Amino acid sequence: MATSYKPPLDAIRFALFDVIGAEPVYARLGFANATRDVMDAVLDEAARFTETVLVPISDVGDQIGCSLDKSTGEVTTPPGFRAAHDTFVDGGWSGLTAPEALGGQDMPESLGAAVKEMLDAANLGWANYTLLSHGAIEALKHHGEDWQKTAFLAPIIEGKWMGTMCLTEPQAGTDLGLLRTRAEPSASGDGSYAISGTKIFITGGEHDLTPNIVHLVLARLPDAPAGTKGISLFIVPKFKVGKDGVMGERNGLRCASIEHKMGIHGSSTCVMNFEGAQGWLIGQPNKGLNAMFTMMNTARLAVGLQGLGLMDRATQNAERYANERLQGRSLSGAKFPDKPADPIIVHGPVRQLLSTCRTLTAGSRMLVLHAALQVDIIERSKDDAERANAESLLGFLTPIVKACLTEWSVEVTYDALQVFGGAGYIRETGMEQLARDARITTIYEGTTQVQAMDLLGRKILQLQGVGMRQFLGLVQKFCEEQAVNVDMHGYVLPLAEATKRWGELTMDIARRAAGNPDVVGECAVDFLFYSGYVALAYWHARAAATATAAGAKADNPHLRDAADYFARILPRTATLAVLLKPDRATV
Amino acid sequence: MATSYKPPLDAIRFALFDVIGAEPVYARLGFANATRDVMDAVLDEAARFTETVLVPISDVGDQIGCSLDKSTGEVTTPPGFRAAHDTFVDGGWSGLTAPEALGGQDMPESLGAAVKEMLDAANLGWANYTLLSHGAIEALKHHGEDWQKTAFLAPIIEGKWMGTMCLTEPQAGTDLGLLRTRAEPSASGDGSYAISGTKIFITGGEHDLTPNIVHLVLARLPDAPAGTKGISLFIVPKFKVGKDGVMGERNGLRCASIEHKMGIHGSSTCVMNFEGAQGWLIGQPNKGLNAMFTMMNTARLAVGLQGLGLMDRATQNAERYANERLQGRSLSGAKFPDKPADPIIVHGPVRQLLSTCRTLTAGSRMLVLHAALQVDIIERSKDDAERANAESLLGFLTPIVKACLTEWSVEVTYDALQVFGGAGYIRETGMEQLARDARITTIYEGTTQVQAMDLLGRKILQLQGVGMRQFLGLVQKFCEEQAVNVDMHGYVLPLAEATKRWGELTMDIARRAAGNPDVVGECAVDFLFYSGYVALAYWHARAAATATAAGAKADNPHLRDAADYFARILPRTATLAVLLKPDRATV
Repeated sequence: MATSYKPPLDAIRFALFDVIGAEPVYARLGFANATRDVMDAVLDEAARFTETVLVPISDVGDQIGCSLDKSTGEVTTPPGFRAAHDTFVDGGWSGLTAPEALGGQDMPESLGAAVKEMLDAANLGWANYTLLSHGAIEALKHHGEDWQKTAFLAPIIEGKWMGTMCLTEPQAGTDLGLLRTRAEPSASGDGSYAISGTKIFITGGEHDLTPNIVHLVLARLPDAPAGTKGISLFIVPKFKVGKDGVMGERNGLRCASIEHKMGIHGSSTCVMNFEGAQGWLIGQPNKGLNAMFTMMNTARLAVGLQGLGLMDRATQNAERYANERLQGRSLSGAKFPDKPADPIIVHGPVRQLLSTCRTLTAGSRMLVLHAALQVDIIERSKDDAERANAESLLGFLTPIVKACLTEWSVEVTYDALQVFGGAGYIRETGMEQLARDARITTIYEGTTQVQAMDLLGRKILQLQGVGMRQFLGLVQKFCEEQAVNVDMHGYVLPLAEATKRWGELTMDIARRAAGNPDVVGECAVDFLFYSGYVALAYWHARAAATATAAGAKADNPHLRDAADYFARILPRTATLAVLLKPDRATV
Repeated sequence: MATSYKPPLDAIRFALFDVIGAEPVYARLGFANATRDVMDAVLDEAARFTETVLVPISDVGDQIGCSLDKSTGEVTTPPGFRAAHDTFVDGGWSGLTAPEALGGQDMPESLGAAVKEMLDAANLGWANYTLLSHGAIEALKHHGEDWQKTAFLAPIIEGKWMGTMCLTEPQAGTDLGLLRTRAEPSASGDGSYAISGTKIFITGGEHDLTPNIVHLVLARLPDAPAGTKGISLFIVPKFKVGKDGVMGERNGLRCASIEHKMGIHGSSTCVMNFEGAQGWLIGQPNKGLNAMFTMMNTARLAVGLQGLGLMDRATQNAERYANERLQGRSLSGAKFPDKPADPIIVHGPVRQLLSTCRTLTAGSRMLVLHAALQVDIIERSKDDAERANAESLLGFLTPIVKACLTEWSVEVTYDALQVFGGAGYIRETGMEQLARDARITTIYEGTTQVQAMDLLGRKILQLQGVGMRQFLGLVQKFCEEQAVNVDMHGYVLPLAEATKRWGELTMDIARRAAGNPDVVGECAVDFLFYSGYVALAYWHARAAATATAAGAKADNPHLRDAADYFARILPRTATLAVLLKPDRATV
């Protein structure tokens, strides 16, 4: 018996449509297909797919996992994974947000993000393959030549093939400048390259979901400069593909082994050996990292969504268990005197665990969907200034989403397991699988520490905080709008206070960092979390404003979550503010 | 390849002898065997045993785990576990702290605690069996009749048999008042009882380490009152034992299944069916919980030690990896320009992870060894007042040790895994095993939430804070002693400030709780952590004072850890203070 999962359609619609107000934005951006009734149908169908197809194989995916036949280099995914992929493709899900011209359905990325949350929650091991495929779509869409789009991108959008991102090597993880994989111009003169080297930690590097796998591989050309300025990006398919798009013979690459991991057992994590494999350059020589960043930003939001999905599933189960499990009596007297004991939800410490789970989940959903909406604006707006603003804002939000939502998923899956007590530690309840699965999310696609350095070092200091100013503008506008609304003062005043302090801390850090670059490393992680907690305060306040405007009573769940967030989570900034003060000893 | 482990002998000696000053206390309490040279030999030998016997089988213990033969109800422990137990017994370790009259070595419990840290770090799955056996020793020592001591206790001290604690039932976990296992007087008139019922989550309920297993079982007599006032404690051996101590026929109990768990795979967790099994009452009828508390308090300190052991092992490995792994360059310029990249320990966020690991580990060690020293005082002091004080202080410290050291073990094993990045998530490095093993420690022997309610509800409010006042007296005395020492002001002043605030918060909570019992549940967990952080501040300050008195320079590791603790960990009280304020919304 694994954990149950009920797709949170009401919560998704409340966040995306009621609070964020995505519908008019979609209309303005020209998403002709994204009418409300079509989007509602998409969400309903996605929910049905996750519940009926993915949830039933999430437990077996963990217990059986993937296996490698060393003699052939072929990977077998868990029972049911391939059939689920076929159903996914038949439903048109693989091209949900891709352009119609390439066979996609042209739905907004932010709607796609809501769908991803459900896929991730239902079966992270399975959904992880689609994450990388989506990253490959983005890179090919933005940087591929026309024939590459036809030959490689269209089949990936169709779901016939899948994509991967091959970055890491044993000596080159975060520091891609150290990578050694080589690309030499092919002697045949057909414009292709021979790719040789070893890549590790390749999600979906080998699997049996599709007949071909399109690897996007970072490698060095013979004359490339050292470091990150000498890295190029190549398309290297498992089976060679001609410029006519026809799949030919096996290419010179092979899965050498798969990792045995703490979790996400359904997702294959491969060591890939490239031995003179035929590859095709994407974009300009030595500009591979630029193209890869396109994939990485998409992937970072997507990993944040993984965190969200796990949080929601863990929270649902913990709430159910806390209402069912009878132990002890409320301190203020039996609440269910006719039962042998009260349900454990009457106990303060249990309520606090659940409150943390609920408020982080609900806040995270608004934060990430709003970030995903910036992707839609960047891709579709015809207004240069709006696009530039969205670009800055997204650059600022991406490390926050990636780092905070994944760290919170570790916390929430921890708390939810704790609600179960000893039952949470045994495999049967499925809670420990959520905790094991969550543990990778703070690592891959750039660790929390890397996100923090990206946020403070690059987005705040190098780019002079332009994205943060966009966000501060949103907060200020909201606070001004709500100034006359007395019911909202309990949210708006602490939000304004935390935001003001955040701005002051930022200026202070910037001043100190100008004289001492090590200050960035010392402040980065605390600053990132401070930012995340302020961002969630903004979204909870907006949710409260939305609910209040709709006539919510005091027992409205959105008001309760917002109140709980301000009471118990936002105060975490008090410690972070102390840590960010200049007079603290350095470590 | 699992993680490595080097027993931290210097750190243990510094904590126990230099900072806590246990040696003169042992002499005063009449531990004639506990001379410094003997104790040094004990620690050295324990280190050798853990390194050579337990570390090599910790990996296989996780990967192979325990198995149950359903046809016989017999459990097979992982390869090497039984041989390790034999070596343990041959070395006399099972009776290290037991009285000489019963075949033990009469060493102090606090020295035994230092040995346990090493056993737990080296192989938690294996060491877990000895924890329960030690709990059974305590209960039999304090509550057993003479023949029971001879028949059951002596063989457990000798290590020939092992003990268990059978408390939990499916419907009765934290709430033992709900338990249903029955004990009926035997028709044979021999004074024994027939025990029937099902117990779950029984650590070591069945195994192949020893030929007999002595279960201590909570059950109800036929005329017992409902709830916790009708629970009695029974000795129920796997093989019947006559009053002459001779092992006879198989008793009516059986392991029905073993749990598949997130971690501690080497430790069998059993569902035990008792079907009219022969049992012997320990202590008075209906007073079983009193006897069980003796075991539970011992077991709670012991679980805190498990947390400490895991923290230390995780920290050692993270520090090694951070010094070896080359990625990126220091923000203030390359520190190792001759290498392809700097070791990741140059990066601020990595240093912070390691600093958290180090300071929580070092502080936890002093805290738990000092708590264990109170056990020695309680058992050996001839001064009634000193014993009473130690009893109060231990009652206050026990929930803090259990909850904080285990929660910190989850945090530290998380942080240490994070230092490894993707390599930490794969089984090969062994880091994820430490994280999985740690996850149970915040649950068994009373969850963190239960400890928090015990601390605030019982130890502070019901017992009017007498144990806390003992602790405050220690802090005050230390601060007064150090007042003239300018070098210590950086520690003593913030310690005094945090302690003062802690006292004020306590008074405030007590006042509010008098009018509203729910306040206890709302404040318990935050209050517990506040207490834990103040306690660690005291111990780090004392470590700094000890090092300073010994002429330590600024680069002394104890001074560095203390400074890091005050700079980065103690500020967590800032948020906790906000949460404990009376005007926060309730959850």
